Amino acid sequence: MVNPLEIKVERNKHKKTKPPQDQLGFGVHFTDHMFVMDYAQEKGWYHPRIVPYQPIVLDPAAKVFHYGQTIFEGLKAYRTGDGRTLLFRPQKNIERMNRSNERLSVPQLDEALFLSALQQLIAADQDWIPSGAGTSLYIRPFVIATQPALGVSPSEHYQFIIIMSPVGAYYPEGINPVKIFVEAEYVRAVIGGVGEAKTAGNYAAGLKAQEAAKELGYSQVLWLDGVHRTYIEEVGSMNVFFKINGTVLTPALNGSILDGITRSSMIQLLKHLDIPIEERMISIEELYEAGRNGTLEEAFGTGTAAVISPIGELSWKGEKLVIQDGQTGELSKKLYDTLTGIQKGSLADPFGWMVEVSETPSGVL
Amino acid sequence: MVNPLEIKVERNKHKKTKPPQDQLGFGVHFTDHMFVMDYAQEKGWYHPRIVPYQPIVLDPAAKVFHYGQTIFEGLKAYRTGDGRTLLFRPQKNIERMNRSNERLSVPQLDEALFLSALQQLIAADQDWIPSGAGTSLYIRPFVIATQPALGVSPSEHYQFIIIMSPVGAYYPEGINPVKIFVEAEYVRAVIGGVGEAKTAGNYAAGLKAQEAAKELGYSQVLWLDGVHRTYIEEVGSMNVFFKINGTVLTPALNGSILDGITRSSMIQLLKHLDIPIEERMISIEELYEAGRNGTLEEAFGTGTAAVISPIGELSWKGEKLVIQDGQTGELSKKLYDTLTGIQKGSLADPFGWMVEVSETPSGVL
Ligand SMILES: Cc1ncc(COP(=O)(O)O)c(C=O)c1O
Ligand SMILES: Cc1ncc(COP(=O)(O)O)c(C=O)c1O
Repeated sequence: MVNPLEIKVERNKHKKTKPPQDQLGFGVHFTDHMFVMDYAQEKGWYHPRIVPYQPIVLDPAAKVFHYGQTIFEGLKAYRTGDGRTLLFRPQKNIERMNRSNERLSVPQLDEALFLSALQQLIAADQDWIPSGAGTSLYIRPFVIATQPALGVSPSEHYQFIIIMSPVGAYYPEGINPVKIFVEAEYVRAVIGGVGEAKTAGNYAAGLKAQEAAKELGYSQVLWLDGVHRTYIEEVGSMNVFFKINGTVLTPALNGSILDGITRSSMIQLLKHLDIPIEERMISIEELYEAGRNGTLEEAFGTGTAAVISPIGELSWKGEKLVIQDGQTGELSKKLYDTLTGIQKGSLADPFGWMVEVSETPSGVL
Repeated sequence: MVNPLEIKVERNKHKKTKPPQDQLGFGVHFTDHMFVMDYAQEKGWYHPRIVPYQPIVLDPAAKVFHYGQTIFEGLKAYRTGDGRTLLFRPQKNIERMNRSNERLSVPQLDEALFLSALQQLIAADQDWIPSGAGTSLYIRPFVIATQPALGVSPSEHYQFIIIMSPVGAYYPEGINPVKIFVEAEYVRAVIGGVGEAKTAGNYAAGLKAQEAAKELGYSQVLWLDGVHRTYIEEVGSMNVFFKINGTVLTPALNGSILDGITRSSMIQLLKHLDIPIEERMISIEELYEAGRNGTLEEAFGTGTAAVISPIGELSWKGEKLVIQDGQTGELSKKLYDTLTGIQKGSLADPFGWMVEVSETPSGVL
C-alpha cells in the first residue's frame, strides 16, 4: 500500500491563462497539474506524484493502443457560494473504478490513496474551479496499460492518471430537452460483455450509431439490449428514467449498462420524495404504447456531465414520440434543481453526498 | 491523396543490436524504424514519414485513452531461402483495415500509399527479417485518435503508425496442439456490435475469460455467440475449423467474428484440394455430439500469428473432449506445411498470394 502522504508535488511554474467562465465548453481546457502513479507487476503501484500537466510518452507497442486495456471515471468538484469546494460522492466513483479494473484485469487501486490524490490535486489547482451557474471542475481519472508488447494478455505495467477540466453548463440555455434516436441496428453491449465497466471500447462501439443519429438531427442514441433488441438500456453517457402514470421507471442493472451514480442518487431522492420508482426491464414497445395512449408523462437522462437532461422526443423505426410537448417536465425540473442545489451547496445535503475538499489536505502542499 | 513518393525518410543512426534468431519470442523486439502519418480534419492525411523507432507523445486527454477509437492490423513478411522478401496478401489487410476504420468512424486510408509505406518500411529494416524456420517479420499497422478533448465523438485528429517485430515460431516445438476452454459465462462480441472490426476494445473484453482459462490450464478461449450462447464464433486471435465425417466446417461470417485472412486462404486451399468445406452456423452441441460419437476427426485454429494451430482438447461446462488423441491431425499438418511453404517461398504459389518487396521500392531509400 502506498502512503497518501508520499504523494510528491512538483509545482507548475508556468501557469496557463484561464479561459473566461462563460466560454468553458466541456473537456477542452485543462488545469495546470495532473496526478500520475505507476504500476509494475513486481512492485505494485508506486511513485504517486502531482506534476505539471504534460504529455504522456509511450512506446508505440504499449498495450493500450492495441488491446484497449484502459478504464476511466468521471466526477465533478463544485465551488459553493461561500467559497468552499465540494466533491459529489467521490467514494462511489472510486469503488466503480475498481469494479471496472476487476472486469478488465487491471490491478486494484488503493481507495484511500485515490481519494487523497483527488483532494491534493484539486487543492493544487483550486483557482481553476469555476463558480458561475452551471459550471464545475470535471475530473477524469484513468488507467492505461503501458507495457510495450504485442500479444493479447493483461499488461504488466500501467499508469494511473488524473486530469481536470473546468466545464460550463452542459446546455447553453440551462436545462433543455434533447431529441434521442432509438437504435435498432447497432448494439453497444451485451450481457456477459463489458457494458457494465467504464472502459474505452464501449464508447468506440457507439460512435457510428451516434454519428448517424446526429445526421438525422438527434443528439444521442438510446440503446436497446443486444439479445432481444427490445429492452431499453441507456443513452451514450446517461441512464434513463420514464414517468408513466405517476410511477417513475428506470431499467434495472442487468450487467450490460453502467451503474450510474446520478442514477442511484435520483432513485434515492425519488424515494425520499415519496414518488413511486421501479427498477425493472422496460421494453421499447411498452414505452411507445404509453406514449401513444398518453400515460408517458416525462422522460429524462441522468449523468455526471449533463446532471438531468429532459428528453423531448424519441424516434424509433421511423415513429416519432413527442414527450411533454417537447418541454421540460415538472419532475425533471425539480430533480435538476434539487441535485444542482445540493451540489453547489445552496441546498441542504440530507443524504451526506458531498465531501468537502480542504485547501491544504494532509498539509503536503 | 498523398503521393507515395512523398514519404520522407529519416534514417536511424543508432541501430539496435539484433536479438539471436532462436530467441525472438513474439512482439517483444522492434526494428530500427517506424512509419508515421498524421490526420487533421481540415487537411486529411498528411506528412507520411519513416523515422527512427521512437515513443509516441500524446496529450493525456487524447481520445484513444478515453474512448478507444483505435484500429489495428497484423501481417507478416518472410525471408525466402534465396534471399527474397515476401508479404502474405497485404492487400487483404489493407482492405480489412479500411473496413474496421469505417465501423469505428476513423477516416479511410489511401490503399496505394499504405502498400507503399509497408514496402518502404520493410526495405529500410530488411536486415531485421529473420530467415530461420518458423520465423518472420510481424508487421503491426494501427491508427489512434489523438485529439485532446473529453466528450464522446469521433476524433478530429489521428496518427497512422506501422511498427515491426521479428518473431519466432509461435510454438517452440513447431506445430503443437493447444487446449481450448469453451467460454460459457463471458461474451466477446454480439451482432450489431464491433466484433467484426479489428479494434482494441474487442481484445480488452476477452482478457478476463482468457486469464480464467489459463488458470485451469487452457491456452485460449473459444467464444460462443452472445445472443443464443450456443453457436461457435472464434478463438481469441484465430478462426476455427472442424473436420467432421470428412467434411470441414467453419463458422460463417455473421458480423460478430473477424473475417480472418488465414481463414479465407484455407477455405480456398481446401476447395483446391477437393476437400468438402462448409461455412455455416455450428452449435457447440453439434460439435460435442460429433466428438462423443467419434465423427469429429480434427480441429484447428487459423491466424496470422499461429498460422495453423491444431486443437487437441476442448472443455465446455466441465466436459472434456479430446480430439485426435491430442495429436496433430493429418489435415492440419498438410495445411500448415502447404501454407508455410508458400509463405517461405519453398512451395509454388498457385493462388498469387505472395507479394515481393523490392530492396529499393520507388527508389526513395
Ligand atoms: C455509458 C454511461 N451510462 C451512464 C452514465 C452516467 O453515470 P454517472 O451518473 O455515474 O455519471 C455514464 C457517464 O458516466 C456513461 O458513460
Ligand atoms: C479475433 C481474431 N480472429 C481471427 C484472427 C485471424 O485473422 P487473420 O487470419 O487475418 O490473422 C485474428 C487475428 O488477426 C483475430 O484477432
